[in-house]
Amino acid sequence: MLKFLIQKDALNEAISHVSRAISSRTTIPILSGIKVDASHQGVVLTASDTDISIQSFIPLEQKNKVIVQLQQPGSVVLPAKFFVDIVKKLPSQDIEIETGQGFQTTIRSGSSEIQIVGLDPEEYPLLPQLQENHVISLPSDILKTMIRQTVFAVSANETTPVLTGILWKFSEGKLKFVATDRHRLASRETALQQEVPTSFQNVVIAGKTMNELNKILPDENIQIEIIVAESQVLFKIESILFFTRILDGTYPDTSKIIPQAYKTELVLNTKQLTEAIDRAYLLSREEKTNIVRLVTKEDESVEISSSSNELGKVTEQIQTGSMVGEELKISFNSKYMLDALKIIDSENIQIGFTGAMSPIIIKPQESTNMLHLILPYRTVN
Amino acid sequence: MLKFLIQKDALNEAISHVSRAISSRTTIPILSGIKVDASHQGVVLTASDTDISIQSFIPLEQKNKVIVQLQQPGSVVLPAKFFVDIVKKLPSQDIEIETGQGFQTTIRSGSSEIQIVGLDPEEYPLLPQLQENHVISLPSDILKTMIRQTVFAVSANETTPVLTGILWKFSEGKLKFVATDRHRLASRETALQQEVPTSFQNVVIAGKTMNELNKILPDENIQIEIIVAESQVLFKIESILFFTRILDGTYPDTSKIIPQAYKTELVLNTKQLTEAIDRAYLLSREEKTNIVRLVTKEDESVEISSSSNELGKVTEQIQTGSMVGEELKISFNSKYMLDALKIIDSENIQIGFTGAMSPIIIKPQESTNMLHLILPYRTVN
Repeated sequence: MLKFLIQKDALNEAISHVSRAISSRTTIPILSGIKVDASHQGVVLTASDTDISIQSFIPLEQKNKVIVQLQQPGSVVLPAKFFVDIVKKLPSQDIEIETGQGFQTTIRSGSSEIQIVGLDPEEYPLLPQLQENHVISLPSDILKTMIRQTVFAVSANETTPVLTGILWKFSEGKLKFVATDRHRLASRETALQQEVPTSFQNVVIAGKTMNELNKILPDENIQIEIIVAESQVLFKIESILFFTRILDGTYPDTSKIIPQAYKTELVLNTKQLTEAIDRAYLLSREEKTNIVRLVTKEDESVEISSSSNELGKVTEQIQTGSMVGEELKISFNSKYMLDALKIIDSENIQIGFTGAMSPIIIKPQESTNMLHLILPYRTVN
Repeated sequence: MLKFLIQKDALNEAISHVSRAISSRTTIPILSGIKVDASHQGVVLTASDTDISIQSFIPLEQKNKVIVQLQQPGSVVLPAKFFVDIVKKLPSQDIEIETGQGFQTTIRSGSSEIQIVGLDPEEYPLLPQLQENHVISLPSDILKTMIRQTVFAVSANETTPVLTGILWKFSEGKLKFVATDRHRLASRETALQQEVPTSFQNVVIAGKTMNELNKILPDENIQIEIIVAESQVLFKIESILFFTRILDGTYPDTSKIIPQAYKTELVLNTKQLTEAIDRAYLLSREEKTNIVRLVTKEDESVEISSSSNELGKVTEQIQTGSMVGEELKISFNSKYMLDALKIIDSENIQIGFTGAMSPIIIKPQESTNMLHLILPYRTVN
C-alpha cells in the first residue's frame, strides 16, 4: 500500500526519461505501464519495450531540498500514457500518490484528485542483472558526437537486422563506431583512456536505440559508464539506467572495401560543396533518383550537376582547394553525400576517388578520426 | 522574352506569400506553377488553387534600395515546388531570371545556373476584376483576433458547405463573425467606423481560407481593405492581393438558439477552469467521448469530473467568483469547452445555463463582444 509525497518537477523529469522506452504498440499489456517503486532510498520509475528498458531514480533529497517524503513503501504499475499526460498538468508542485485495494491509485495535487486503475507490479518483467566487473567510461559529449556522425548510415531494412545497428569496435586503445546500409558507410573513432575487457567484442546496438540514448544524454559533459554482458548493454547516466540488447548476428568486415590509395583527390570547402549539392539534390529528388554528377575541370574546379527531363537542370561550379590525380566523371546519390557532409564539422573536406565505379571516400581535412564511404552509381555518361 | 535582376530576400518574401495558394493536388496543371510578370512597374507573382488566389507585387525600388532591375518585360509560369525550394537556397542575393525559347527559363546566382522548363503564361487563368466602389477598411489586429476567436468552431463536414465557413454579418454599425458546426457556436463582433455597402450581405468565407489569410496578415497593425463583389472577396494587404470566393448557400439564422435569460449563472477564473477541464479532458479523451460533468455545490464551488471504466476518474473542485440561480448538473464535450476557453483573453468568464438540456453560454466577464455556445450532452446521471 504505497504512499508518498513528491515534487512535480522531479517526477516529471524522471517520467520524461523513462517514457522513451514506452511503445504505443506493445503486445504485452503490463509494458504499456510505468512501474513505480517507492522505498526508503527513494522512488524508482521503470519502463520497457523489451528492446530498451529505462530506469530513473528520484532520491529523497537533492541539493538539500526534500523531493520525496515516503509514508509507506510499495510498488504499482500505472498506465503510461495517462499518467505521463496528467502529471504534467497537475496544479501544484506537491503531489501525493497513494495505492489502495487492488492497486487502485489516487493522485492528489491542489484541488485535483485523480484515480487511476493500477496494475500488479509482480507481473512486471525483471530487468537484467549485469555483472559490473567490466566497465568502460566515456564522456557523454564524445558519445553524442559519435552517435550523430554515424547513426544516419544504418540500414532501414530489417532483413539483415545486424545492419540496422551501429558496430562498437574496440581495438588498439580505440573505440570505433561503424554504420553501413551496403550503399554507404560512416565511421568515427575515439581514443580510450583504459583497457577494454574482452566481453566488449562484436557489440552492435540498434540505430534507433542509439538515437533514444542520445536524447537522454544531458547537455553538460558527464562521464557515462558502460557495462557489456553477453546479450545486454547498460549505460549509466547519473541517476538513469539505460538497458538495451545487443543485436544478433555477425557484423560484416567492412575494412576490405575501403580503398587505401586514390586516383583522384580533391580538397573542397565543406559549406560550399554542401550548398551546391543541396541545390542539385532539390532537382534530383523530383526525379526520385537523387542522382548528382561530379566532373573535374581543367582549371581545378569541379562541376556539380543534376537534370530532370520534366523540370530542367542545375549546374554548379566550385573551385577546389587542391586537385591531384586523374580527371573524373562520377555519379552518386546526393542524399547520401549530404547526410555525410552535414555531420562533418571541419571547414574543408578531402574526397578520394579510385575511378567512376569505385567507392568515394569523404574525410574531414583536419582530422583522421572520421571516414565516410559512398558507392557511386553506374550511369550512362 | 522576360529578363530581370532581383534581390533574393524580396523574391523569397513574395514567394512565401503567394505559395499559400499552391495546392499540391491540383487537377489543373498550370496551377501547379507560380506566374511571374515583369513590367516597368515591378514584378508580380501570382498563385491560385481556384478557391484562393494570391498576388504579390515587388516594386523596382523599396526604401531607396533597388530591388528589381528590369531588362525585358515578359511573363512565364514556373513549377511552384521546385521554384520555391531553389530560390531559398540560391548562393547570392543577386538573382538573374531570363526566359528563352519555349519558356525555358534560366536562373543565375553566384556560380549556380538553374534551367527550368517554364509554361505558357497565356494558359494561366485571369484573376477576377472587382469593382472598387465598395470598400471597407479594418485594422489587421482586429481581423486576426476575430479569425482566431471564431474559426475553430466551423464545421469540418463538407455536406453543408456553408457551415465550413465564417459568416460576416453586418448590422447597426457592427461587423460580427459567426461560426458553428451545429454542436457549438462562436461569435465575435467589432464596431465599424464606416457605412457598409449593401453588397456586404450574406458573406461566408471558408474557415481554411480565413486561416490562410490570418497567416499572411503582418505582425504590425495595418489597415486592410476589403472589397466584396457578387461571388468574390478581395483583401488588400499592402502589396498583397488575396482573392477568395464566397461560399454558396444561405447561412442559418443562429440568433434564435441563443437564450436571452439564464436559470444558473457562474463567474469563474478562466485559467483555473481551463486547467481543470483540461485534466478531465485527458481522461475523457481516452474514452473517445470527451464527456465531462459539471455539478454546482452548495458552498458556491463547482465540481468538474470525468471517468473511464478502464482508466479511473478525475475530480476537480473550483471556487466560483459568484453563483446565481438554480443548482445544476450538466455534461458537455470538454474539447469544445477548451476550444472556447483557450481563445478568451479575459481573466474571468461568465457561464450561463438554462437547464441540463439547454445550450451553455460562455462569455468573457469584461466584454460583450464575444459569445460562445455549446450544446450539452444528454447523459444518465
